[in-house]
Amino acid sequence: MELRGEILIGLRGERGPEAALQGVDPIGGGVLLPVYGGASRAQLDRACELAWDAWAVWRARGGAAHAALLEAIAEEIEVLGDALLERAGLETALDETRLRGERARTTAQLRLFAQLVREGRHLEHRYDAALPQRTPLPRPELRMGQVGVGPVAVFGASNFPLAFSVAGGDTAAALAAGCPVVVKAHNAHPGTSELVGRAVQAAVRSCGAPEGMFSLLYGADERIGAWLVEHPRIQAVGFTGSRAGGDALARIAAARSRPIPVFAEMSSVNPVFVFPHALRNRSDAIAAGFAQSMTQGSGQFCTKPGLLFLLGDAGADTFVDALQTQIRERATAPLLSARIAERFRAAAAAAAARSSTRHIVGQAAGDGSAPQVFVLDAREFAADPLWHDEMFGPGAVVVRAGNPDAVQPLLEALAGQLTASVFVEPEDYAAAAPLVRQLETMAGRLLMNGWPTGVEVCDSMVHGGPYPATSDARFSSVGTLAIRRFVRPVCYQNMAGELLPDWLREAGTA
Amino acid sequence: MELRGEILIGLRGERGPEAALQGVDPIGGGVLLPVYGGASRAQLDRACELAWDAWAVWRARGGAAHAALLEAIAEEIEVLGDALLERAGLETALDETRLRGERARTTAQLRLFAQLVREGRHLEHRYDAALPQRTPLPRPELRMGQVGVGPVAVFGASNFPLAFSVAGGDTAAALAAGCPVVVKAHNAHPGTSELVGRAVQAAVRSCGAPEGMFSLLYGADERIGAWLVEHPRIQAVGFTGSRAGGDALARIAAARSRPIPVFAEMSSVNPVFVFPHALRNRSDAIAAGFAQSMTQGSGQFCTKPGLLFLLGDAGADTFVDALQTQIRERATAPLLSARIAERFRAAAAAAAARSSTRHIVGQAAGDGSAPQVFVLDAREFAADPLWHDEMFGPGAVVVRAGNPDAVQPLLEALAGQLTASVFVEPEDYAAAAPLVRQLETMAGRLLMNGWPTGVEVCDSMVHGGPYPATSDARFSSVGTLAIRRFVRPVCYQNMAGELLPDWLREAGTA
Repeated sequence: MELRGEILIGLRGERGPEAALQGVDPIGGGVLLPVYGGASRAQLDRACELAWDAWAVWRARGGAAHAALLEAIAEEIEVLGDALLERAGLETALDETRLRGERARTTAQLRLFAQLVREGRHLEHRYDAALPQRTPLPRPELRMGQVGVGPVAVFGASNFPLAFSVAGGDTAAALAAGCPVVVKAHNAHPGTSELVGRAVQAAVRSCGAPEGMFSLLYGADERIGAWLVEHPRIQAVGFTGSRAGGDALARIAAARSRPIPVFAEMSSVNPVFVFPHALRNRSDAIAAGFAQSMTQGSGQFCTKPGLLFLLGDAGADTFVDALQTQIRERATAPLLSARIAERFRAAAAAAAARSSTRHIVGQAAGDGSAPQVFVLDAREFAADPLWHDEMFGPGAVVVRAGNPDAVQPLLEALAGQLTASVFVEPEDYAAAAPLVRQLETMAGRLLMNGWPTGVEVCDSMVHGGPYPATSDARFSSVGTLAIRRFVRPVCYQNMAGELLPDWLREAGTA
Repeated sequence: MELRGEILIGLRGERGPEAALQGVDPIGGGVLLPVYGGASRAQLDRACELAWDAWAVWRARGGAAHAALLEAIAEEIEVLGDALLERAGLETALDETRLRGERARTTAQLRLFAQLVREGRHLEHRYDAALPQRTPLPRPELRMGQVGVGPVAVFGASNFPLAFSVAGGDTAAALAAGCPVVVKAHNAHPGTSELVGRAVQAAVRSCGAPEGMFSLLYGADERIGAWLVEHPRIQAVGFTGSRAGGDALARIAAARSRPIPVFAEMSSVNPVFVFPHALRNRSDAIAAGFAQSMTQGSGQFCTKPGLLFLLGDAGADTFVDALQTQIRERATAPLLSARIAERFRAAAAAAAARSSTRHIVGQAAGDGSAPQVFVLDAREFAADPLWHDEMFGPGAVVVRAGNPDAVQPLLEALAGQLTASVFVEPEDYAAAAPLVRQLETMAGRLLMNGWPTGVEVCDSMVHGGPYPATSDARFSSVGTLAIRRFVRPVCYQNMAGELLPDWLREAGTA
């Protein structure tokens, strides 16, 4: 498929007249063709109005139609073949194995949502029979089900050019709920976005869905994001990216004359706690696993373990030595963009300038970024907020806390997290249980003896957590639970079958 | 029980040093003893810290303990006996029948939540088995469940001194989730609040729950609400009241360094649509039902039908005449407070000054407020935003739209709603079905041939809706669904039974 540098509005492609952008090869720094003109306000309005019109038609079509569209999108993405992987590799410097895996995840999650809505599990049907004889008042017949919220704005993320981008998790969840989607493409992979966007367009066409079910907008400056979130036709927002970006969108949404919900997945250090017996018995293996997980994808996963607490002394030196060996030999790919690389190098330099006990540096990538680990004691960690926030990229902090009790006062420094992990032997369970209960209040996913990178797409997954992990801990952005962000409950009281939605009439009184 | 005019912090009662307030008899205007001093910032801090400490202990105790506390509260409220109804009557001018019904609803909903959490249905257990042989990567074992969000701030409403106040729906839902509650008492019924607050205190004591599970604060000015929502220990907010009040709290919550969710139930006109056959066949009965519903509780229900569209001509004159007869003969009780009465009279005067086709006025209550109905044509309604917003009190608007199609352009003027009702005969179904599908996107509850006042507390109820009905249409503030506001999902990956919460271990792998 030839890239045209076009905005996609419904089934059309057209040039954007606003400030242009291009993809950039993160390895060589060269700009990539074509040039993508930014969407005008009028183009954005048109996309949102089309979405509104599509919404009225498509939401009535029901789960089978919604499922068919999701499956058609998965197929069209597969039809793109290696051209998609090649373009994504060019724009992100992510390797082919990773991108193949990410594509498989993207199509699998489209199909998982298709299965969910075909089965109707997301509708959460509830029924209360009428009690005409009840005193003092009779009870009416009541039914409940979930309906889509309306057109959803989706902001693609840079670090998952497929799975959290144009046809990624947010888009899949919104379409599963019957909601049209207007995507703001991430500037870091415009060509990948166009390819996937045209695949979605083809699926919309082949399914006979209203064309407004999907539009894809580009914009070099931040105004376009603000316009989109402000637009009265947009009813909810899905975002994956920086805390500053997510906060800004949440503020805009809250300031609307009719505020709308924003689900922003933003920032997490994903703390890891290594308990004494695990540390003594497995320090080498845990160090190797940590080095692997924190540098995987050049450390650009939202679930990268960025902070590890050693809760014992025995094995701590061995751990740090093993980690040093692992890191020093380790090279990563260049970061996703020059901006991310620059920020990472600045953050690492600021950290290095602090008096850390030990500073471990790996091999520099082509863009000058190298994996970095900072080893601290508990006092040093507690005293400086620098160590408490996410460092996006292959950087991490190891805190020698000495014993499980010493970590308690340090927890208050940690904000909400996507994940928290404990490494334990059975002898550690007694000491670990109270910490796990506390981590439950701080994170969306808790792992035992495992690394948080790698997020399973399934019913039980929670990719969420208290702020700043996300803007609303009551939701998840991965797994079937993610559809809840884009549905709302509606109750029908004494409603004749003729006036019920088809699926609710079919659900009956069970 | 003697009223002491005290703030309740955990198991203590103490005087508040800030600006004082007193209950006022809405009928005679006389002030009621005792005097309630406003809580100081230090007292509020103490309540929030106690809540935080209680949270760590109580959330681990599980559903049976949480249920027992809810049931003990219901019993202690019943122990208050007629003294509670008398004080509530004095402070609100609501009649005894209404207050008895409201008390029954309050205790019933505490017991409904007790049943819910004893059964564990709110935990939404999910399980995905490990797939160790899966390629390219094995799947870990994953479990999911819902946990409480932490201490919740609850703002009592003036119009339901029992059911949406100190131990009302928000408090019941939060306690059901294991969350401690800090209540800001509504200034309009401080004595009722103290009585119920002491009942909750007694239940906390008798259940051996940590004392911080409940505190009750008074405050004459708005600072105390802001302090509460800003407080770092508070993790969520439940509010029922005005749009201005709910918006203000939402802004404060969003501006925190760690934003928290606010569920505010605010404003709704609850439109009613009378289709041609129903209008022709039942104009008298529908007019009588409308007059009854819009004046019930002096029109101070959030589900009061404040706007009715006549979608036919035949029967429309009869309807308006019948309504006039009903309204002119109808007196209501004085409104809940002098402030509400003054606002209602001002709103009605402003409406009367507009060129309405017909203005129907009922009997003036002791405070000078009288039921008011304004009859308009569609053009008049569309042209003036005055007619689109809630008029709190016994006021309503009737729009003679003439036919079902004429209502379509008027819907855009309507914001989000708690309810929408259609009156139909079977011959109207074909015309009504498209409107019902559209109302689905605008309201939380849709009724056929029934009035929206009277909200059933059950599994299928949705008391919610798009803004400004609530701040987040994805939730309900009535019924078992209401607990979702105060829980969040947590996923456990490869977690040994010893480190799982008790209930999740017991839930097993089903």
